[in-house]
Amino acid sequence: MLVNGKKVSHISVEDRGLLYGDGLFETILCQRGRPVLFDEHMRRLQMGCKKLDICMLEKDLVLAELSECAQQSDCIIKIIITRGVRARGYQYDPNDQTSTRVVYRNELTDIPLHNYTSGIRLQLCRHRLPSNSALAGLKHLNRLDQVIARSEWTQGFAEGITLDQEGHVIEGTMSNVFFEAEGKWITPQLDRAGVEGVMRNFILQNADKFSMQCEQSAVTLQQLLAADAIFVCNSVIGVWPVIEFQSSKFSVSESTRRLMQYLHANVSSLYTSV
Amino acid sequence: MLVNGKKVSHISVEDRGLLYGDGLFETILCQRGRPVLFDEHMRRLQMGCKKLDICMLEKDLVLAELSECAQQSDCIIKIIITRGVRARGYQYDPNDQTSTRVVYRNELTDIPLHNYTSGIRLQLCRHRLPSNSALAGLKHLNRLDQVIARSEWTQGFAEGITLDQEGHVIEGTMSNVFFEAEGKWITPQLDRAGVEGVMRNFILQNADKFSMQCEQSAVTLQQLLAADAIFVCNSVIGVWPVIEFQSSKFSVSESTRRLMQYLHANVSSLYTSV
Repeated sequence: MLVNGKKVSHISVEDRGLLYGDGLFETILCQRGRPVLFDEHMRRLQMGCKKLDICMLEKDLVLAELSECAQQSDCIIKIIITRGVRARGYQYDPNDQTSTRVVYRNELTDIPLHNYTSGIRLQLCRHRLPSNSALAGLKHLNRLDQVIARSEWTQGFAEGITLDQEGHVIEGTMSNVFFEAEGKWITPQLDRAGVEGVMRNFILQNADKFSMQCEQSAVTLQQLLAADAIFVCNSVIGVWPVIEFQSSKFSVSESTRRLMQYLHANVSSLYTSV
Repeated sequence: MLVNGKKVSHISVEDRGLLYGDGLFETILCQRGRPVLFDEHMRRLQMGCKKLDICMLEKDLVLAELSECAQQSDCIIKIIITRGVRARGYQYDPNDQTSTRVVYRNELTDIPLHNYTSGIRLQLCRHRLPSNSALAGLKHLNRLDQVIARSEWTQGFAEGITLDQEGHVIEGTMSNVFFEAEGKWITPQLDRAGVEGVMRNFILQNADKFSMQCEQSAVTLQQLLAADAIFVCNSVIGVWPVIEFQSSKFSVSESTRRLMQYLHANVSSLYTSV
């Protein structure tokens, strides 16, 4: 574990990351110590730093520290950047370039194989995500909404779907969602809520490589329930097909399989395919 | 500084307070080491712990640690409670009573006397607060909205007013707001956004003692601008009368003076009166 390059496992109580959640994070899959979709993670982190006015990390520095922590293993590396320790109060001096940089390793936990082979059941979360265009898309440290939504079930479901205040479908608690309708794949637009997942962006930008036609739009619950197929995705788990949501049944579509095979063959063999 | 009773100044990088802002805080004014409005702070903390399903602190323990940190001085004591270190991911085991408790001292910084004697100018923040009924009222650690709103001005204003997504007046970035109209004092209802300030609650509950008639309701920007008088308040600063907001001018009303005198005489002489 590295904090500003030093081998310690703690941060100051007065760090704004703790006091206000004033920072960002990335959770990066590593295969034999090499980060998967690293450029995409760095791009999102850069977008977040720009929006929150936090000094961006140098990519080479992050890569060096990530490699040191990953030690050539298959693992998850978490990177946190905060505005660091400043004077008391919400205000910060924009000329002060202080920040705190944390890089540490998590074990790759076993994911049940049937999440990939048979597909998963989805919960519908009662907790609604707030609309917040200034923070939408970012992977910031204010995650109480996800904590509350994830606390709504303990077993039986592998993921839960969250809606916004108006009832639009936004995402999973830790993943993004795509669904197939009339031959097209749709994922909710994230201009007012949600996290722009690295895997979501990868799929949107490379859709032609696995013969998917993708678009972002406002999505109602009715649209999702009427889908021909659904999957959830993130950069650690890859893709999980959905087989049940709110009593509706779904099958694993051909194009979901094609996507999973592409990710396994071309992005990382750690992404389980079917 | 005390972390779980130990004299250290840091917490684990893996604490959910940092990772997700999964916790609550209180900022308590202390006069010669004695906390002002302590019961009210503890009541709010208890409400937050209940709503977030975090194990509540024993009042006697908090008071003992607060006293140790305050060392009989005039100061500000910050108390933070988080869900502590748990397994990776948003989910938490509700049977696990782990938490992290932080108590530390901040200097009482000088507030310009004219904020009390002449009154302050208010900024109108462009950043809108999200609607979030599950978190409304709580002083939780997800404070990016306040960080963003407070970054909108550097000088000329002592506080900024934030609205919700629909344009209703909610609060200041670090205070609550009251305004006088037709002899009554009104403060915005906080059922969907905002922090239930300890000073706000004290004023609402003791209004008859300083001959104020108070109520909570939905408040439009037009109502606030048409007010006969305005003040902002919190438990550290006490009460600041407002003299200017969006080109509208206000004078310091008799009842604002009466309130300030009451707080100075009956709650803490640290609350500057006029």
